Amino acid sequence: MAQGDYRVADISLADFGRREIELAEYEMPGLMKTVEEYGAAQPLKGARIAGSLHMTIQTAVLIETLKKLGGDIRWCSCNIFSTQDHAAAAIARDGSAAVFAWKGETLEEYWECTMNAITWTNPDAKGDGPDLIVDDGGDMTLLVHEGWKAENAYAKDGTLPDPSSTDNAEFKIVLTIIKRTLPQQPDKWHKVAARMKGVSEETTTGVHRLYTMSNAGELLFPAINVNDSVTKSKFDNLYGCKHSLPDGICRATDVMLAGKRAVICGYGDVGKGCAFAMKAAGCVTTVTECDPICALQAAMEGFQVKTLESQLDTLDIVITTTGNKGAFCGVCS
Amino acid sequence: MAQGDYRVADISLADFGRREIELAEYEMPGLMKTVEEYGAAQPLKGARIAGSLHMTIQTAVLIETLKKLGGDIRWCSCNIFSTQDHAAAAIARDGSAAVFAWKGETLEEYWECTMNAITWTNPDAKGDGPDLIVDDGGDMTLLVHEGWKAENAYAKDGTLPDPSSTDNAEFKIVLTIIKRTLPQQPDKWHKVAARMKGVSEETTTGVHRLYTMSNAGELLFPAINVNDSVTKSKFDNLYGCKHSLPDGICRATDVMLAGKRAVICGYGDVGKGCAFAMKAAGCVTTVTECDPICALQAAMEGFQVKTLESQLDTLDIVITTTGNKGAFCGVCS
Amino acid sequence: MAQGDYRVADISLADFGRREIELAEYEMPGLMKTVEEYGAAQPLKGARIAGSLHMTIQTAVLIETLKKLGGDIRWCSCNIFSTQDHAAAAIARDGSAAVFAWKGETLEEYWECTMNAITWTNPDAKGDGPDLIVDDGGDMTLLVHEGWKAENAYAKDGTLPDPSSTDNAEFKIVLTIIKRTLPQQPDKWHKVAARMKGVSEETTTGVHRLYTMSNAGELLFPAINVNDSVTKSKFDNLYGCKHSLPDGICRATDVMLAGKRAVICGYGDVGKGCAFAMKAAGCVTTVTECDPICALQAAMEGFQVKTLESQLDTLDIVITTTGNKGAFCGVCS
Amino acid sequence: MAQGDYRVADISLADFGRREIELAEYEMPGLMKTVEEYGAAQPLKGARIAGSLHMTIQTAVLIETLKKLGGDIRWCSCNIFSTQDHAAAAIARDGSAAVFAWKGETLEEYWECTMNAITWTNPDAKGDGPDLIVDDGGDMTLLVHEGWKAENAYAKDGTLPDPSSTDNAEFKIVLTIIKRTLPQQPDKWHKVAARMKGVSEETTTGVHRLYTMSNAGELLFPAINVNDSVTKSKFDNLYGCKHSLPDGICRATDVMLAGKRAVICGYGDVGKGCAFAMKAAGCVTTVTECDPICALQAAMEGFQVKTLESQLDTLDIVITTTGNKGAFCGVCS
Repeated sequence: MAQGDYRVADISLADFGRREIELAEYEMPGLMKTVEEYGAAQPLKGARIAGSLHMTIQTAVLIETLKKLGGDIRWCSCNIFSTQDHAAAAIARDGSAAVFAWKGETLEEYWECTMNAITWTNPDAKGDGPDLIVDDGGDMTLLVHEGWKAENAYAKDGTLPDPSSTDNAEFKIVLTIIKRTLPQQPDKWHKVAARMKGVSEETTTGVHRLYTMSNAGELLFPAINVNDSVTKSKFDNLYGCKHSLPDGICRATDVMLAGKRAVICGYGDVGKGCAFAMKAAGCVTTVTECDPICALQAAMEGFQVKTLESQLDTLDIVITTTGNKGAFCGVCS
Repeated sequence: MAQGDYRVADISLADFGRREIELAEYEMPGLMKTVEEYGAAQPLKGARIAGSLHMTIQTAVLIETLKKLGGDIRWCSCNIFSTQDHAAAAIARDGSAAVFAWKGETLEEYWECTMNAITWTNPDAKGDGPDLIVDDGGDMTLLVHEGWKAENAYAKDGTLPDPSSTDNAEFKIVLTIIKRTLPQQPDKWHKVAARMKGVSEETTTGVHRLYTMSNAGELLFPAINVNDSVTKSKFDNLYGCKHSLPDGICRATDVMLAGKRAVICGYGDVGKGCAFAMKAAGCVTTVTECDPICALQAAMEGFQVKTLESQLDTLDIVITTTGNKGAFCGVCS
Repeated sequence: MAQGDYRVADISLADFGRREIELAEYEMPGLMKTVEEYGAAQPLKGARIAGSLHMTIQTAVLIETLKKLGGDIRWCSCNIFSTQDHAAAAIARDGSAAVFAWKGETLEEYWECTMNAITWTNPDAKGDGPDLIVDDGGDMTLLVHEGWKAENAYAKDGTLPDPSSTDNAEFKIVLTIIKRTLPQQPDKWHKVAARMKGVSEETTTGVHRLYTMSNAGELLFPAINVNDSVTKSKFDNLYGCKHSLPDGICRATDVMLAGKRAVICGYGDVGKGCAFAMKAAGCVTTVTECDPICALQAAMEGFQVKTLESQLDTLDIVITTTGNKGAFCGVCS
Repeated sequence: MAQGDYRVADISLADFGRREIELAEYEMPGLMKTVEEYGAAQPLKGARIAGSLHMTIQTAVLIETLKKLGGDIRWCSCNIFSTQDHAAAAIARDGSAAVFAWKGETLEEYWECTMNAITWTNPDAKGDGPDLIVDDGGDMTLLVHEGWKAENAYAKDGTLPDPSSTDNAEFKIVLTIIKRTLPQQPDKWHKVAARMKGVSEETTTGVHRLYTMSNAGELLFPAINVNDSVTKSKFDNLYGCKHSLPDGICRATDVMLAGKRAVICGYGDVGKGCAFAMKAAGCVTTVTECDPICALQAAMEGFQVKTLESQLDTLDIVITTTGNKGAFCGVCS
């Protein structure tokens, strides 16, 4: 583990990361053009940007784009397993951002990384927080809001968050972290909220949280819903998953896909991409789906639509394409 | 039914047939080039050619190619259902060949057509038979050989073929036809055999019959095995069937294929073409196959390999790709 | 041509039509269930229903469903080429509807058929028109509205429609027909409009016309937009076209598709279905598309997106999937 | 680099390797059944087996199968880049074989590994060589034959191999290694050849070398042609490449494949697998091919067949599926 104002698995992977970043830049002409067109104007000059988004090669290109536009950047991943260590190494070594991410974090480490990514080591008059958040899943936004609530309670009567008040293992950690810094910095999160220009959020889950907070009048700063843009839902979900699913299975298992029996739970955009990917890989592919329109689409594409239960004896691979509760249940699937 | 020295369903379809023949000529550059290169030399000048091969638009182009090379041609179909009546009409009307074929022949009519196709109405010194046979399935070749055998028996002791000697409905008809002409023309088939330069045969079944006769020393004239040329087995069987199977099902039933459950019995070249066609049409496609290598290929392409019995309750479409006995049986399939 | 209170190409095709109708009923469980559930209640008892919709086997099943629910039905096709003559024959012979439709109508015949389909031969107190229209493309609805306008002008000052007032060949025919009946029945179309419960419309073009009339306050009766239901746009357009395109090309040309170069003009739902169908058939398939999102979808599926002009030298098959002006133009395509 | 009677990149990867070996065993029921059936009989008891074959997880399963049948095994990879270091680590740590292989060997290291794999550290009466070779590409077999030739020359007149006699960088290394050991062990390779029961070879290249030697009367021991078995050419080449090509590109580049332009040079079994893999991944896929039958197959599958030259401006990915000289040349491709 290598550390400075960063924490990554192996800084010696930086060269490999840099080479793949160069390949990826060629693949991301939109960002390249943005730098070309706006780089000189430095529209993000001085902006502090905190990101909580899979620390991959492609994210590295995004980070360096923001940097070239003038941004001052800190980053963590939004998933304990998704970091590409060579990407993180290149970003850290080349000073593109203060990055706190590695493959295989514990949950405690994950939230420490988030804390590090949102806390500038050189506070200014407006505090130690960012001007902008690039969020994926809403964890960083959650931390700000929970911190803000805790500060209110603390200001009122000195109450500290009680990690034992929740059964949720992850939320317990969030409360622990907030509790730790609260006495020293009782206005940290209020300053963060006050300073924040806004957050961009690119997942269904995260957007759902934001709408809930917004409707309840509890959202502390503006948010941009990236998730529902057509280039996200119709491309990232469909083609992104179509590409990434077999790639991920191959890297994780080194097992041949052709001839395997795969079931895709859910046939929305993600499910469609996954189903076509498995079919293209030569899997006998079936689908579970409770929405009748989506189920009919699956049938028209030649996928058998069956309950998960009816296939348990023969399946080799189960892919769930939704976090919705019930996707595995007998009634729906 | 229109008749002259031909018999077709509806001579008024000739214009439609001609238009499609013109389209097909564009699709068959090999034949077109042959005419271009050899037409002037008339290599088939005076050759009597009898064909027993599906009387389709494409066959029409073949017939007219042979004609342009100098041939004198008579034709019938090798299947009671396969004639395209507009193709037959164009050939008949424009005098390209004496053609005896229509969609929906009875078995009796089928063999009468074969008899007509192999019997020139203007016999010459060598008799009324052809110099060459273009055979598909071997029926015309069979007729010659059975006629020849019957003539031998008749010459020996006046024995006539006995249609009641066989339970095979079709062979009964063959014997009846031979019996009818035998007394008037007791050397018809010997003359045919003596004159014959040879037969080309393009089916597995027909080639199998020829090898059997050849090995038994009973083949009366040379034969060319067209079936086993690579452009037949690897193209006609695979891509021809891939194209024709859904086309045929659609024309015959006007039923949508997407979402149907189809089983392909056999996964040789024909079966591969059929399986890919049904999959491409959106069918849930399974395969039955007793050969382990072919079965493994099916599995690697994502087709479930199952016995036919195990699917009988749920199938919509059953395609058999082989005439082999046993393809449907429990052990093999 | 066979005639009674119907006009079809060949009444002897009725048996073939009936057989395919029976196959189709099995494929259309929604309609079958409707009859099962509502047949006894006869909800359409006495309703006069006029249809202008491709007179195919599937439409025949719809007609007979309406009949079984109590309807009194007259029908024509909405396209001069789309009638399946065996379907029309079965409907005519079995008295399911008074049907006026055959494959290969002239434009004059087409509008006479429409006139026949909307005019009951046994008028009642409310006139000779229908209570409901099942429209596809809006031609029958157009006829009512044009008739109604002409009657207004005629009532005002005896003006008759002037076919020479338009360059549009088809509209000339519409005006001629209206002009012919106007003096004898000066209130025919007002009665039709007054009686009409409503029209259902299932095409983009027809729906567009209806919205235009509705926005201008000129729509004479209620209309249901069937076109924009999800089972239409996401199934009929996509899977319907995927199924029908190669089927139609095969029937019309008897030409092999594998290896041909096909371009699909437009990559909306119809274009997507067409592109996948051609690709599945083994065509080298390209796409023209001016919408950037749709163009990107095509690219992600492996279709080259090119202008039509750049491919004119090498194309075998051009498919236009849109009636939009400009789809072929250099700028857009 | 970890060393014992083995040399691997990182012995700490052994746990990860072991886990994947366990997954792979499930995927290789043929080997598992062999152990089950013959393990007790120990048919390879005491046999010294040297392997030169990609040191992957799957090869690890093969090695351990041979071990369980009684074999005494030494191994190297047949490619400087193909070793999976976690596979090698598991084999080394668990003593399954003496393994000399890591990802990213130099050519010198590669041949030292080969030398190590073929040289037992505990010679017996028959020398220090193996009883059997499992070869892939023929490098180990080449080393034996070149050593044998060098020993003959040395025995005759003390001539030592002259590395400067060849321009081939790799052959220079082979000669250097042989030269080094020749004086100390002037009969090493004769003993190896005398002892050898035989070699199995699984590549076209290696088999070609063997046939050449056999025809010239220079093959020193029996060889089994594994390459031409149907399960190799029709499965490994086709489905193996179909699986591995996109997997390899993804791991090496982290770049999305959909929408890229890929050309496959050669459309034999390997080329077919590669072409289908790229097409399935959403690439615009073209093929170069000089054999007319294979080119026609490509065309029938909807791949444009073009020369490489004509596409150089627009290509993103070039895949060569053959080592044949000329595959890239203007005339052939």
